[in-house]
Amino acid sequence: MNENYEIPKTMNAWVLGGVNEILAVVKPVPEPGPAEVLVRIDAVAICGTDLEIMARGLPAMVEGGSPFNKNLTIGHEYMGTIVKLGAGVDEYKPGDRVAVEIHAGCGRCERCREGMYTSCLNYGMNYGDHQKGHRANGFTTDGGFAEYAVNHINTLVHVPDFMGDEEATLIVTAGTAMYGLDVMEGLYAGKSLAVTGPGPIGLMSVAAAKALGADPVILTGTRDERLELGKKLGADYVVNVKKEDAVEAVRKIAGNIGVHYVMECSGAANALNEAAKMVRRGGRICLAAFPAQPVMVDVAHFVRNNIYIFGIRGEGNSATHRAASLMAQKKINARLLHTHTFSLSELPTAIKYARERIDNAIKVVVTNEKKL
Amino acid sequence: MNENYEIPKTMNAWVLGGVNEILAVVKPVPEPGPAEVLVRIDAVAICGTDLEIMARGLPAMVEGGSPFNKNLTIGHEYMGTIVKLGAGVDEYKPGDRVAVEIHAGCGRCERCREGMYTSCLNYGMNYGDHQKGHRANGFTTDGGFAEYAVNHINTLVHVPDFMGDEEATLIVTAGTAMYGLDVMEGLYAGKSLAVTGPGPIGLMSVAAAKALGADPVILTGTRDERLELGKKLGADYVVNVKKEDAVEAVRKIAGNIGVHYVMECSGAANALNEAAKMVRRGGRICLAAFPAQPVMVDVAHFVRNNIYIFGIRGEGNSATHRAASLMAQKKINARLLHTHTFSLSELPTAIKYARERIDNAIKVVVTNEKKL
Amino acid sequence: MNENYEIPKTMNAWVLGGVNEILAVVKPVPEPGPAEVLVRIDAVAICGTDLEIMARGLPAMVEGGSPFNKNLTIGHEYMGTIVKLGAGVDEYKPGDRVAVEIHAGCGRCERCREGMYTSCLNYGMNYGDHQKGHRANGFTTDGGFAEYAVNHINTLVHVPDFMGDEEATLIVTAGTAMYGLDVMEGLYAGKSLAVTGPGPIGLMSVAAAKALGADPVILTGTRDERLELGKKLGADYVVNVKKEDAVEAVRKIAGNIGVHYVMECSGAANALNEAAKMVRRGGRICLAAFPAQPVMVDVAHFVRNNIYIFGIRGEGNSATHRAASLMAQKKINARLLHTHTFSLSELPTAIKYARERIDNAIKVVVTNEKKL
Amino acid sequence: MNENYEIPKTMNAWVLGGVNEILAVVKPVPEPGPAEVLVRIDAVAICGTDLEIMARGLPAMVEGGSPFNKNLTIGHEYMGTIVKLGAGVDEYKPGDRVAVEIHAGCGRCERCREGMYTSCLNYGMNYGDHQKGHRANGFTTDGGFAEYAVNHINTLVHVPDFMGDEEATLIVTAGTAMYGLDVMEGLYAGKSLAVTGPGPIGLMSVAAAKALGADPVILTGTRDERLELGKKLGADYVVNVKKEDAVEAVRKIAGNIGVHYVMECSGAANALNEAAKMVRRGGRICLAAFPAQPVMVDVAHFVRNNIYIFGIRGEGNSATHRAASLMAQKKINARLLHTHTFSLSELPTAIKYARERIDNAIKVVVTNEKKL
Repeated sequence: MNENYEIPKTMNAWVLGGVNEILAVVKPVPEPGPAEVLVRIDAVAICGTDLEIMARGLPAMVEGGSPFNKNLTIGHEYMGTIVKLGAGVDEYKPGDRVAVEIHAGCGRCERCREGMYTSCLNYGMNYGDHQKGHRANGFTTDGGFAEYAVNHINTLVHVPDFMGDEEATLIVTAGTAMYGLDVMEGLYAGKSLAVTGPGPIGLMSVAAAKALGADPVILTGTRDERLELGKKLGADYVVNVKKEDAVEAVRKIAGNIGVHYVMECSGAANALNEAAKMVRRGGRICLAAFPAQPVMVDVAHFVRNNIYIFGIRGEGNSATHRAASLMAQKKINARLLHTHTFSLSELPTAIKYARERIDNAIKVVVTNEKKL
Repeated sequence: MNENYEIPKTMNAWVLGGVNEILAVVKPVPEPGPAEVLVRIDAVAICGTDLEIMARGLPAMVEGGSPFNKNLTIGHEYMGTIVKLGAGVDEYKPGDRVAVEIHAGCGRCERCREGMYTSCLNYGMNYGDHQKGHRANGFTTDGGFAEYAVNHINTLVHVPDFMGDEEATLIVTAGTAMYGLDVMEGLYAGKSLAVTGPGPIGLMSVAAAKALGADPVILTGTRDERLELGKKLGADYVVNVKKEDAVEAVRKIAGNIGVHYVMECSGAANALNEAAKMVRRGGRICLAAFPAQPVMVDVAHFVRNNIYIFGIRGEGNSATHRAASLMAQKKINARLLHTHTFSLSELPTAIKYARERIDNAIKVVVTNEKKL
Repeated sequence: MNENYEIPKTMNAWVLGGVNEILAVVKPVPEPGPAEVLVRIDAVAICGTDLEIMARGLPAMVEGGSPFNKNLTIGHEYMGTIVKLGAGVDEYKPGDRVAVEIHAGCGRCERCREGMYTSCLNYGMNYGDHQKGHRANGFTTDGGFAEYAVNHINTLVHVPDFMGDEEATLIVTAGTAMYGLDVMEGLYAGKSLAVTGPGPIGLMSVAAAKALGADPVILTGTRDERLELGKKLGADYVVNVKKEDAVEAVRKIAGNIGVHYVMECSGAANALNEAAKMVRRGGRICLAAFPAQPVMVDVAHFVRNNIYIFGIRGEGNSATHRAASLMAQKKINARLLHTHTFSLSELPTAIKYARERIDNAIKVVVTNEKKL
Repeated sequence: MNENYEIPKTMNAWVLGGVNEILAVVKPVPEPGPAEVLVRIDAVAICGTDLEIMARGLPAMVEGGSPFNKNLTIGHEYMGTIVKLGAGVDEYKPGDRVAVEIHAGCGRCERCREGMYTSCLNYGMNYGDHQKGHRANGFTTDGGFAEYAVNHINTLVHVPDFMGDEEATLIVTAGTAMYGLDVMEGLYAGKSLAVTGPGPIGLMSVAAAKALGADPVILTGTRDERLELGKKLGADYVVNVKKEDAVEAVRKIAGNIGVHYVMECSGAANALNEAAKMVRRGGRICLAAFPAQPVMVDVAHFVRNNIYIFGIRGEGNSATHRAASLMAQKKINARLLHTHTFSLSELPTAIKYARERIDNAIKVVVTNEKKL
């Protein structure tokens, strides 16, 4: 059980280069501090945000821009095996298989003290004179496109033995979906929900909402094969917005008064307006995606119809733990999202598959060939 | 105490005519049904929404448009004296002075059963074959620009003896401010709040937030005299947005990380974007006003910063009761908003004062000269 | 669909007589008022509370005692077919199969306005000079041990075609379990829950919690056959408290720090103390049952451990709708609780089976032989 | 501003000896770690819990009993001046005057991650092999009956210049009252509240509730002079339970239906039963005090009346910050509670005054004579 792992001094890792460039390097294996562990990365999935970061840089979450960029190891949807404990850690032990969430809050700002660690007011403050302990692995601290990573224990969730590595990389995706459902504060059993956008988070939202008893769950999107997958994950209805008017179709399914909730996962320019027309009076919308540029929005409609809108960044409120439990209980079948596996050394190819959706790629996973 | 009132068969009332036209008529005094009372209107304030309704018709809250318009008696910020009880009413008695809130929900839809009666799914359903019991006096059922009105007992709040008629017409305005604070679910004591827009609801939001211990409360607007009034009502800071950049000024006051909450009461085109930049990460915004047309909105900012946005229509959750209590406790000095009084027969003049802000009019009140 | 039903003038019904006496009478079929329907009762289950009422009278929920007792028709777990609509009802139509919840609030008190209709401050006020519209069928207004009953539309939930009559009588039981989970405000997926007491509400709590993803769910009780049934309904662990120390067993299963939540459904004298020792620091307890007499309670333990305790009466917050949905989705298998069926004319025998648990009776259902 | 303080190697401190024994010692001045500061204690108030600890030992909050007892420096209601910063602290600077709250959670357990740091699952884990970082100064780590103490920055709140040292020691008491109001989740403006027990927390609850607009606030107790003080702090009504039946008196004031909320601060044997009879149906009770022994409790009453009960330990949810703001805004006049001041070297006399309520002592404060 308490295995001893031989840990090399250096490791293979990928780091950001120029625009859309990712470079193979050899760098030191990092050292876990107090309340941290060293994780040997066994598998890491490629997220759309990874592609965004490569193309356009880190999201502007840090006031004044991020101080770290080039040479950062991105990749945040990973799982692995604990190989070393930092000081004071007894919550985990070497040999434990774990998946991760992205954010470890500073624990000392007002938001962290409230439990809203993904809104940490010391976001990114983990460098130079700004050692507040915040970590967002793959965003502001090194992430998972490497052989090893350091993680704060607050970001870890146990992976059961019977769950495969590839499947476990999807815990954080399912956790984001769960968190979106959390923030809308719904009692979902028997309530109607529309999910707009059948990307990984949208698909996991369908599965998580069904696991909580939502009914009906309606998925909208443009690609029939994704909508079919949504059905397999539990969608009661799917709407191809190229063939039907999305708002009209959703309202019709929901008794002509609109759904209780919308989880917006498309980032389409008109998505927020459409979501607001899909929900009934007093309805709630979670925004898990967004258009890159400002868009025209009918604000009056929110006010006249008592609509609440919740922006979320990632997977807070320990939602990964609940998502992992639903996956372990076989109530969410995340494996349906996993389409391709490459080895870590093939990362550029894996990225190409993910970016260009070659061979209908959804989740492309990279595994550490040295694991065994 | 249990006074008997002689109630005439007919009364003077104003009704909607053509665009921006309001007509004096004589019509039957209405009869209160079960759970209703007849209120002799003693005073009614003119709201910006009254002017909107006259100019552009009722807000499109009823699907397919409102079936009633011409001949409707508008006016929703009124108070008066109960002169007759409907069947089964013992919560009030003749002679009781009352102020009103606008909405009486149907009590049978899903939203009413949850307590969200301002989001009643049977909004406007109180006519013909649609007798669901919903009332929004001054919007879908007759309101207060008349000598008498019928009110459901759920819309009533007691007015203490020492509070004047004009002041009592402002209970519903203060109630809307209170409700806006409610929906953001804040623990306001010691928390920072910006109020954008120094109209009556904005000013009452300042007063209500200070009454609950918010600190600092910052008011932004374009007119110095309104901002000065805001100070008298409790604003710790005011920002004239013609002279300073509103976002920058608010953030600076709030320790450069932004305020906890924004109550948006201006309806300005860029107000939502600015509010989102005024709040800190994880902040909350209540929309109590809105631009008439769709506007450009930076949706990405809400998502990246975990911002929640709450549209409200009016004064739900029995907030009028709590507002009335703060006014009775002298913690909100609503009298500062009342600037002009006319008699009911002078309503067109009163409306002119309100619309053109003649003589710096804020709240223009019309009183029933026959009261005494 | 819009069937016409011939409704007789009189019907067979059972009414309370003396202690533990229930009398067959013929009485007028009641008339539905506005917002009410007439339900032909097709099946009604016997609840432990029915036996309590027969033995000891109505629970002292009405200040000063209930004015109605003798001649009341009890029975509150029923379902049937709508045969007549009161004025203004279009939410349902004749021929609709419905199950019921017990409480229709007055809709006008402070609690009803908040949505807490089971805490209606006009409880029982539906008689003589007290016509506030409150109904608690089977408690303060006539219930289901009869051929027909009047119900407010707020108490109705649709029964899908494929669900049998007997199963549908259990919707209200499942609704009570759902409501208990609601009030603890848990995010149950992946959280631990102990249910103490394997009566119908306890068993439904197990099933509802598992349907929402709770894990592990632990059921405690004294009878192995009931615990076995609990396993079939989803319990991950069962504890026979005659064989093991309940607190110790639950804590051991829950990682030695205690469970997140306890649903107390036993009413045992020491149940609250044990529940408080079963939960971890900051845990929550719902009380759905209670000992008849005051008991010794270690109040200090609640304070030192930040424990919250929620008393519930029945099935508020529209939880029956959500429970019915989970049953319709086959996520709760309520049929496992149904053990015996008798005809309405055999009610005394049915009661005897329920009271004496003859033949391991759990839910004994009485059906209306005239239905077909 | 950034003053330099000369910090001695050793300091005077008081430590627990035998039962009711407190011993003067000289011990090393402690060293602040990361995210900690060293506070020069300028004033510390004596709390009833200090007397309890001296008489009966630490509350049994640590499973298996506390490992530290003798030689612990107790005292938790203190304020002072920051004289040294631990690594990474820029939130405060030397010279800042601060008051403290008791609990610094571990930041890594499930409760801390939710923001419920007073329910930290690693309570007391800050010694030997259990370095989880939890601190409860004056309970499990050294507190304020000394010249210096180490505090985690999460426990600090700024004291404004115009607030005196003695007054500032009461911030934590007011914070506990605020937290009690928090957990009941009330919208207090215009709502009725009874406070049972006019000790310091009860009196601060009166003041805090009035500051939030509660109306009426009723205080019950046995001593007229304390009740009079309650009036000065804002109580609308007081009830001397030696002269009147407390339940009857409270219900009569609250319109015969009972109050919305009760804050129980007496710890009397029958207090919970009485509180449950004081609240209306659906009411809420916060327990901030408790009887040392189990007592007879009418659990059935909670269930039949949908009553919720919230045990609290101390002052979580950053309530001290909000309390300090209300004090700074002069909305809570805590000075009225301060009755006596002694110097640190006179601690045994100060304790005697507090324990025996000599000269009607309420809050007895000990100040550091070396401060100047």
